[in-house]
Amino acid sequence: MTRVAIPEDSLFGLANLPYGVFSTPGTAPRVGVRVADSVVDLAACLGDGVFAAPSLNPFMAEGHARWVEVREQVLDLVSEDVPDEAVHLLDAVTLHMPFEVADYVDFYASEHHASNLGRLFRPGSEPLMPNWKHLPVGYHGRAGTVVPSGTPIVRPSGQRKGETAPAFGESRRLDIEAEVGFVVGTGSALGDPVSADDFDERVFGVVLVNDWSARDIQAWEYVPLGPFLGKSFATSVSHWVVPLLALEAARVATPPQDPEPLPYLREKNPWGLDLDLAVSWNGQVVSRPPYREMYWSPAQMLAHMTVNGASSRTGDLFASGTVSGPAKDQRGAFIELTWGGTEPVTVDGEPRTFLEDGDEVSITASAPGPSGTRIGFGEVTGRVLPARRR
Amino acid sequence: MTRVAIPEDSLFGLANLPYGVFSTPGTAPRVGVRVADSVVDLAACLGDGVFAAPSLNPFMAEGHARWVEVREQVLDLVSEDVPDEAVHLLDAVTLHMPFEVADYVDFYASEHHASNLGRLFRPGSEPLMPNWKHLPVGYHGRAGTVVPSGTPIVRPSGQRKGETAPAFGESRRLDIEAEVGFVVGTGSALGDPVSADDFDERVFGVVLVNDWSARDIQAWEYVPLGPFLGKSFATSVSHWVVPLLALEAARVATPPQDPEPLPYLREKNPWGLDLDLAVSWNGQVVSRPPYREMYWSPAQMLAHMTVNGASSRTGDLFASGTVSGPAKDQRGAFIELTWGGTEPVTVDGEPRTFLEDGDEVSITASAPGPSGTRIGFGEVTGRVLPARRR
Repeated sequence: MTRVAIPEDSLFGLANLPYGVFSTPGTAPRVGVRVADSVVDLAACLGDGVFAAPSLNPFMAEGHARWVEVREQVLDLVSEDVPDEAVHLLDAVTLHMPFEVADYVDFYASEHHASNLGRLFRPGSEPLMPNWKHLPVGYHGRAGTVVPSGTPIVRPSGQRKGETAPAFGESRRLDIEAEVGFVVGTGSALGDPVSADDFDERVFGVVLVNDWSARDIQAWEYVPLGPFLGKSFATSVSHWVVPLLALEAARVATPPQDPEPLPYLREKNPWGLDLDLAVSWNGQVVSRPPYREMYWSPAQMLAHMTVNGASSRTGDLFASGTVSGPAKDQRGAFIELTWGGTEPVTVDGEPRTFLEDGDEVSITASAPGPSGTRIGFGEVTGRVLPARRR
Repeated sequence: MTRVAIPEDSLFGLANLPYGVFSTPGTAPRVGVRVADSVVDLAACLGDGVFAAPSLNPFMAEGHARWVEVREQVLDLVSEDVPDEAVHLLDAVTLHMPFEVADYVDFYASEHHASNLGRLFRPGSEPLMPNWKHLPVGYHGRAGTVVPSGTPIVRPSGQRKGETAPAFGESRRLDIEAEVGFVVGTGSALGDPVSADDFDERVFGVVLVNDWSARDIQAWEYVPLGPFLGKSFATSVSHWVVPLLALEAARVATPPQDPEPLPYLREKNPWGLDLDLAVSWNGQVVSRPPYREMYWSPAQMLAHMTVNGASSRTGDLFASGTVSGPAKDQRGAFIELTWGGTEPVTVDGEPRTFLEDGDEVSITASAPGPSGTRIGFGEVTGRVLPARRR
């Protein structure tokens, strides 16, 4: 038997206990919990088939009461000695995609980001569209290309605007978007909108998201039906799903909303999350986006997404859109951080704008836990590989 | 043993043999083939577990060579006597969603439709955006709300533009879009674009699609990231997937494309489909959209969708966008047919613009088969129910 050692300053202490899917050499992917720098095998410890699945979906589908129950069981489990064979060092396991994505929706919930992109994409016009302060603007992304952290990102090719005719080739303006994603645990039926106050019952947990974006492809294709190939080549998510239950102490009031939203977007206690993100470019932190600045709340996003009667499903992922704060070094996309490539940032002594082949981007985050602890989200990382030759 | 009787003018003769998923009282959904007005139980006849699945996905995933093989087996099967217990009258079965939708993409491939909508949504501007003739514009829709024909359509509620502030309420401009959908049988890997000439290897079959659209919700929300809640409440598909293998005789040249598309959008033999659609409003045909008029071909859509390296999966559905021809009575959406509600059509003696509660819309189609036969697509039908009261 082994007691998992937890350093006092670990971001993965007993207040966190995020879920993921792991395997060891020769074994099948299954559900584990991260404790400090170890992974505890829930399939082995709790004797419940849902944890032997290669995704969190069967467990998430069991619903909120069960999430509470299992979290208590896990806390009891790792507070005592655990069977040796159920504990693995993080370095000795392979981490997989933690859940099977049903539908993927991406919002646009940062006023700073939407204003910056409005200025960059539509110079001379009002940066925010007339609808922006009335509803959380969002759109569907490609669920099939949501990949786990560490998946290499092959530079996409596509059409971009040319002088007289569009040009085809590899993207020259490959960018990131540092986002926070919410994973639906229990779905809702067709015709049955989810109230903003029912968020906790429905949403299982939180991941970090990098919504890789080819700005040249996007700028040419996106009118009038929205981004498509400029985004659909890859969206990376972190390996660990931090349970919403671990984020009670991280809740903060949302920024003031003016005008007051329509009734279906009102919450009894409007809340955001006090997450500090950090974006590293080749190991150097270039931005620290604060999630607490997001205009639209996660609960408003879910209420909006279903107000027309659209159903939701276990495994639905909805992301916040780029997290950007008011300061320049709080911008969560390089197009904003470098103002469309005109104001380079210095990485490793070199002026940089968009991503070059071989670049690695890593987004991390942490949030307040109970009693002065902090909750870690791990990271979402990807390295850019050269475009495929044809 | 029974020989399935096939009237000479049946749209579901031996040249068609579309696949669907059906059940009889007390039995589980499984794969069947429609022959005339009967359903032949493939799980019972072919003794292969893939047909006992409640969706076509396992069979589709087996790939093109197997699709050819099974089509020959089915042709042999129904050309002879079939065991009584494996033949059901269509009226005696329940039809289900024929496949599990992975990602759903909706294109905008009709020049007539895109031009009409451009004029209606952006009066005073060029109707076609600068990108339109260079790439098949498309976007992702909500896979979780793709429903089978016959599913009631509850009128959605949402925000629409108001005088000074947006209004919330039930949609007043509920519309249809008559479309044709293509179902991916064998997917492609991340980073591995599908050539337009590989379409036949990848795409299993064709369905009819009604992309229900709330025009007031859509018009307010769609800038800058595209349609979201105006579409995501429901998208209906027909019950029968007509195999691409049945549509050899239906292939026609696409309309001339000027300017010539970029190389990745070129096909050795550019082809469209000679489908005649008919849209019935409460039983009365109000439009006959011709699919042969579509500017972008199905193979161009698939090549475009994956050119950035996006993977595709078994069950991916991509739809053409509204099928509209050059004539007024060939328009596949009511917003076009009634010119934004200003030129009503007469249905059952009444002037009509957008859908009213209780209205039923049915889209049917047929195409040329070999030797003067015709291939039927069945129908995609839905009745509008009143908005949910809150």
